[in-house]
Amino acid sequence: ALVNHCLSHFESSTLYAKELAKGQHWVITAGPTREPIDPVRYISNHSSGKMGYALASAASKLGANVTIISGPVTLPTPDGCQRVDVESALCMHEQALALAPQADVFIACAAVADYRIAQVADQKIKKTNDEMTINLVKNPDIVADVAKLASKPFTVGFAAETQDVATYAKDKLARKNLDMIAANDVSAEGQGFNSDNNALSVFTSTEQFDISLASKGQVAEQLVSLIVKQNKK
Amino acid sequence: ALVNHCLSHFESSTLYAKELAKGQHWVITAGPTREPIDPVRYISNHSSGKMGYALASAASKLGANVTIISGPVTLPTPDGCQRVDVESALCMHEQALALAPQADVFIACAAVADYRIAQVADQKIKKTNDEMTINLVKNPDIVADVAKLASKPFTVGFAAETQDVATYAKDKLARKNLDMIAANDVSAEGQGFNSDNNALSVFTSTEQFDISLASKGQVAEQLVSLIVKQNKK
Repeated sequence: ALVNHCLSHFESSTLYAKELAKGQHWVITAGPTREPIDPVRYISNHSSGKMGYALASAASKLGANVTIISGPVTLPTPDGCQRVDVESALCMHEQALALAPQADVFIACAAVADYRIAQVADQKIKKTNDEMTINLVKNPDIVADVAKLASKPFTVGFAAETQDVATYAKDKLARKNLDMIAANDVSAEGQGFNSDNNALSVFTSTEQFDISLASKGQVAEQLVSLIVKQNKK
Repeated sequence: ALVNHCLSHFESSTLYAKELAKGQHWVITAGPTREPIDPVRYISNHSSGKMGYALASAASKLGANVTIISGPVTLPTPDGCQRVDVESALCMHEQALALAPQADVFIACAAVADYRIAQVADQKIKKTNDEMTINLVKNPDIVADVAKLASKPFTVGFAAETQDVATYAKDKLARKNLDMIAANDVSAEGQGFNSDNNALSVFTSTEQFDISLASKGQVAEQLVSLIVKQNKK
């Protein structure tokens, strides 16, 4: 009877996930990037980093060794996590490609700038003209490049969309060779970038899982648990 | 002897400034602005808002009624100050022009975006192309428009420069019809945008005052005191 009890307890969701995640190395990108225009100006986005930090905290609680590659945020580093601070997408790409080959799980939760400024000015640009044009070039695709690695970790992408969420997410999953993608509708009320809550539609190549609206901490626990189990398959 | 003592005490710097500032209405802009590109991306700058908030605190301590028109910052509102939150330069301009006509002193400390995006996208822009161009148009000049008011308050501008600080500052003072300009070299170590310290070169049409490197709180007290005395002239 004692053995049965222990087994059933072991197989209960959290303990089972803990056993699987223990000692794994997870790398999680979080927050926005900043793309410099000149020494004072930049392009960025409304990511607060809360979701990525919640995922790092949840994975760490399961016993994983977590490294956060973090854009500029105002959040404290979760207990037990390592943190590498970066500003630009190019720096985040460099750190991600350096850390991902040794990782078991890679979660690309950062809101990485798709484009950077083609030619960054050394000095503050003077506003001499009534109009101005900024030429942008595409940044490298961090999660796609991680998913191309010979020693590819279980690779999870995010899709923040304002329309046709499922369509864009499933296309991104296939096109970038991801193992999982977590999509949210940032145009919906009460979830997304600066909110404390989130709701996710999670896709693998064969399945869909819906994580309903809850605190980012609770959503993170569910997503991390799902990653652990899918990774084991 | 009592009268003499009181007079000399009254004329000591802080008490004198307090008597002059008491009941005045000061409007201070602070922080960066954010110029939307689409629902998730924006152009901004590295202003922390610390200098503007320190000025608001210092003016409030002298007994002025202070309204901060604030871009997105992570600072608490100083005791006794009113705060109006804005994001874009257009909104800051609107609030400034609404409040300045009744103000005694207007300090433009915000790092306002010189340009905004010509055509803001309703939906998140998809990264379909390898290159992208953002077309920008000039934002209204908030401090210059305040200085054009028939009921112009004592108008103080800031100049954050990375080269030829004094030349640019004095040109800006004259060109925009300001009463005072406070210039700092944001390329110098240990001062400027995200630092806790600052150093200023302050110009009126006839004089120059140097406030040497100190905490933004101390620099703010000196600048506010200088404004009070120059405004009285």
